Amino acid sequence: MVEMVFKVTPWEVKGEIDYDKLVDQFGVSLINEDILKKIKKMTGEVHFMLRRKIFFAHRDLNFILNEYEKGNKFYLYTGRGPSENIHLGHLLPLTFTKYLQDKFKVKCYIQLTDDEKFLFKKNLTIKQANKIAYENALDLVALGFNKKLTRIIIDTDYAKTMYNQAIRVAKHITFSTVKAVFGFENSSNIGKIFYTSMQAVPAFLESLKQGKNIPCLIPHGIDQDPHFRVARDVLPKMGYLKPASIQNKLLPGLLEGGKMSASIPNSAIFTTDTPKEIKQKINNAFSGGGETIEEHRKHGGNPDVDIAFQYLKYYFEPDDKKLKKIEEDYRSGKLLTGELKQIAIEKITKFILDHQNKREKAKDIVDDFILKD
Amino acid sequence: MVEMVFKVTPWEVKGEIDYDKLVDQFGVSLINEDILKKIKKMTGEVHFMLRRKIFFAHRDLNFILNEYEKGNKFYLYTGRGPSENIHLGHLLPLTFTKYLQDKFKVKCYIQLTDDEKFLFKKNLTIKQANKIAYENALDLVALGFNKKLTRIIIDTDYAKTMYNQAIRVAKHITFSTVKAVFGFENSSNIGKIFYTSMQAVPAFLESLKQGKNIPCLIPHGIDQDPHFRVARDVLPKMGYLKPASIQNKLLPGLLEGGKMSASIPNSAIFTTDTPKEIKQKINNAFSGGGETIEEHRKHGGNPDVDIAFQYLKYYFEPDDKKLKKIEEDYRSGKLLTGELKQIAIEKITKFILDHQNKREKAKDIVDDFILKD
Repeated sequence: MVEMVFKVTPWEVKGEIDYDKLVDQFGVSLINEDILKKIKKMTGEVHFMLRRKIFFAHRDLNFILNEYEKGNKFYLYTGRGPSENIHLGHLLPLTFTKYLQDKFKVKCYIQLTDDEKFLFKKNLTIKQANKIAYENALDLVALGFNKKLTRIIIDTDYAKTMYNQAIRVAKHITFSTVKAVFGFENSSNIGKIFYTSMQAVPAFLESLKQGKNIPCLIPHGIDQDPHFRVARDVLPKMGYLKPASIQNKLLPGLLEGGKMSASIPNSAIFTTDTPKEIKQKINNAFSGGGETIEEHRKHGGNPDVDIAFQYLKYYFEPDDKKLKKIEEDYRSGKLLTGELKQIAIEKITKFILDHQNKREKAKDIVDDFILKD
Repeated sequence: MVEMVFKVTPWEVKGEIDYDKLVDQFGVSLINEDILKKIKKMTGEVHFMLRRKIFFAHRDLNFILNEYEKGNKFYLYTGRGPSENIHLGHLLPLTFTKYLQDKFKVKCYIQLTDDEKFLFKKNLTIKQANKIAYENALDLVALGFNKKLTRIIIDTDYAKTMYNQAIRVAKHITFSTVKAVFGFENSSNIGKIFYTSMQAVPAFLESLKQGKNIPCLIPHGIDQDPHFRVARDVLPKMGYLKPASIQNKLLPGLLEGGKMSASIPNSAIFTTDTPKEIKQKINNAFSGGGETIEEHRKHGGNPDVDIAFQYLKYYFEPDDKKLKKIEEDYRSGKLLTGELKQIAIEKITKFILDHQNKREKAKDIVDDFILKD
């Protein structure tokens, strides 16, 4: 747990994140030019999230790439905690994971941790969390994950497999460890204390099923790193490889610094929002523009803190040239805040409407993705 | 956790147990004459384990009997940790539970906690624990539990149902609680810490299945009381009744004071022992006899510490008159230690051979008893 001006745990993100400090605290490595070159060599391109250092850090990514070059395929594992509908912040690692699946043609597990959300949210029932997990699964399918290569784990629906593996993990983890890593206290409930064992399971599930070690790569928001730090410590004791990981910065919330939070509805745009809601939310979002048009024309705006610009950078404008033009025009004062917001609103609305369309169609096939005991 | 001259936890029993102190520490009630009268009125008899105060303590047994009189049937729940073959100490609560089932014609769940044993025994694998659970299940069936009314839960085989209910329990239990109740430490593994939630589940499983509250009575060795103390605290918070319980004293080990322990093979007689092993073990067992025949004839023996006598009292001589004669003859010196041991050897051997016969036949029907997700 990092507690300074900002705080980042799997369950809470507070303050403006200093990613350099976080990298240092968590002990992850920055993705350097050598890695990007290698990826370019292997896949022919470098995804904009890598180019822009949105996916900025990793553990053992070199190992994954080297093994792949030798013909030893890895598999992907990512996930999310289903406490609310999916918002744009969740789409970052999911979209990137889907991209990796396409480029490397590999298997992928996506874990929806309804048990976790039940244990950590005071007023959430298991039934509610499970229902949200099914809603979230529609978003996953809508993103276009490969039906043959992708399996969704909803923890309570796959609990027989999951629990029987989680206790193997749990036997290697003490209360001291979870206290230090997650900041648990004596007043924490024993379900929370046990839970990280469940999140470790997909990191060796494919190896278990295949009866041999398959390298695992976990794309995830940096806030989830504590879980995988524990998993990396334990899995070798069980005869499995340490899972590798690749971490993204968290998409800023609409209202202020910090992660988007599904628990503050106006801080995030959800995949279920209407065009009207999207327009309203972006228009209300924190802006880097001048206080008046005159001032903006004179001194320019600050795209580095402007949410509309950040959304274009993180997700909605993959074209570097176009993004650079917007950035320069905004910084110079040529592009007004209202105009910048309008660009973001149009792109986000188009994306969301298309996604909602795919999400409807996903209802017919989602069951094929979900693992059941 | 009670730590004085003796120690009794669900995982360790040390020293000679002072049951009066234990009753006080655990906060259970002694079974009094009123309860025995009530049972006699209801069933026409009082089982020798009740008459002899082997089942000596309880929680809310009055409630169970009162409800039954009103036509509101209870159900039974007992269990065992499958780390080794079943020994005579395990048969006490199981045999008594089977008796209660017959007398009251009620449903019964028997939990075999292979997950627990895996988590608490350093070198035991899940596969081994699960195999032992199946072996133990044969003993349960051999005891004659009603096939229609009895269901055996092997935790890892019913883990989907169990885990999904256990997390509901876990949400109400803090680390502070399990630390105080079980003596866990920061170095305890998080599977152990979570585990008591799994042992709480069968205490409301029938209510869950029937969709209404069914009183639950748990016959068990007094060492397991800490689990059910926790369950009694939590279940009302989930809308269920507090489970009632009835506790037995622990069958003394062959070698010294304290519980029989499956981890010290010579301290216990197993249901799989041969007549030769039984003979050897009883002959080597701690005796209350005089040092020489002359001394024994002169001063008599002490049946209160004599293991052979205690086995007759706890299990193998249900007839009070016959037991009293043996006791008096031994105390007077008329009955020699060798003769007393011979009585015990004959009775135990006869029982075990018969049990082994039934255990063989159990293989054909055991699967009908076991719950699977």
